[in-house]
Amino acid sequence: MVKKPAPDATRRSEKSRRAIYDAALALVGEVGYPKTTIEGIAARAGVGKQTIYRWWSSKADVLLDAFLDLGEQAGQEPYEIPDTGDLASDLKAVLRATVDELFDPRFEAPARALTAEGVVNEQLGREFVTKLLEPQLELYVRRLRAGQDAGAVRPDVDPRIALELFVSPLAQRWLQRTAPISYEYTDTLVDYALHGLAPR
Amino acid sequence: MVKKPAPDATRRSEKSRRAIYDAALALVGEVGYPKTTIEGIAARAGVGKQTIYRWWSSKADVLLDAFLDLGEQAGQEPYEIPDTGDLASDLKAVLRATVDELFDPRFEAPARALTAEGVVNEQLGREFVTKLLEPQLELYVRRLRAGQDAGAVRPDVDPRIALELFVSPLAQRWLQRTAPISYEYTDTLVDYALHGLAPR
Repeated sequence: MVKKPAPDATRRSEKSRRAIYDAALALVGEVGYPKTTIEGIAARAGVGKQTIYRWWSSKADVLLDAFLDLGEQAGQEPYEIPDTGDLASDLKAVLRATVDELFDPRFEAPARALTAEGVVNEQLGREFVTKLLEPQLELYVRRLRAGQDAGAVRPDVDPRIALELFVSPLAQRWLQRTAPISYEYTDTLVDYALHGLAPR
Repeated sequence: MVKKPAPDATRRSEKSRRAIYDAALALVGEVGYPKTTIEGIAARAGVGKQTIYRWWSSKADVLLDAFLDLGEQAGQEPYEIPDTGDLASDLKAVLRATVDELFDPRFEAPARALTAEGVVNEQLGREFVTKLLEPQLELYVRRLRAGQDAGAVRPDVDPRIALELFVSPLAQRWLQRTAPISYEYTDTLVDYALHGLAPR
C-alpha cells in the first residue's frame, strides 16, 4: 500500500511515484505478471530499486496501487452510482462508462495481464478481488439496496448476487472475447435482469 | 483436430492418444500454457515427438482435443439440455452439473491455465471459445428457444444474451474467485434471471 510521503517529500518524489506506476502498468501489460520485476519497473521508471522498496514491499503491492491510482485519475474512485430515481438508467449509465474503461488502452493490457495471473495464482487473485474488484461491486450493492427501498427491486433479492446478472456477462465477454460488446448490449443486460426472461 | 486413426490402427495407438491427452492436461495445469511444449508432452506420455506430430500440428491442437475428449469421457458432449417442460428445473440441473465439473480436479487446473492464457493471447482465446465454449453455450440457446416456443420465455428475448445472465456469473465466480459457489447460488441465478429483479 502507498505510504504517505514524509512531510519533506518534494514534488520530485511525487513525480517518481507516477513514473513507477506508469512503468509497472506498461511492463505487466507487455511481458505479463510473472516476468514483471521490481528491478524492471525501477529501470523503466528511471529510479533506483531502493526508491521502490521504500514505498512498497512487493510487485503485487506496486501494481495494486498503480491500478487504484488509474481509477482515481479516471475519476472513478469511491463514489456512488448516481441515484436519479430511475434504476434502469442509472445502471445503464455506469455500465456504459465501464465499457469505455475496458477498452481504454492504458487500462486494457495491464488489466488483462493481472486478471490472467489471478486466474492461476489464487493468492494474487484474491488480493486484487478484495482490494480492487469488490469495492466496485459494493457500489452496485448500495444502488440496488436503494432500489429496494424505493420499491424498484424485490425485497427478497440478494443484491450481491443480483448485480452479477449484468456485471458478469460484460466481464466474461471482455475477458474471454465470447461476443462483441456495445452500449446496446449492456443496456439489454440491464433490461433482461430487471424484468426477467419469463413473460410478465 | 484429431485425425481418425488409419484402419490398421491398433489398440496401442489408442493407448498413446490417451496418454498424450493425460500428459497435455497435466502439464498445462502444472506449468501453464507458455511452458507446455510438444517435447514435454511427448516425454511425459512416453511417446516419441513424431507420434504427436503425426496427429496434431501444435500444442494448442493437442490441448483442444484433450479437452474435447475430457468432456466426452464425462458424458457431456454434443447433447441437448433436457426439456422436461419445466425450464427453471432444466437450467438448474445443468448448472449444478457444471458446478461439479468446475471443481473436478482433472478439469480445474488445466481449464484455469488455458483460460488464463486465452485472456492475454487473443488467437488462442478465440480458438478455444469457438471450438469449446460456444458449442456448449449453443445448447442453452436451443433450450431457451424451446422455452420461447412453449411460452416460458418472452418472444423478444435474444437467447444468446439471455443465457449469460446465469452462465457468466458462475464463470466469473469460478475464474476470479469473487465469492463462493454452491447449488443454492446457481439455483438463485436461474430464478433471478427468469423472474427478474423488479417486482412483478
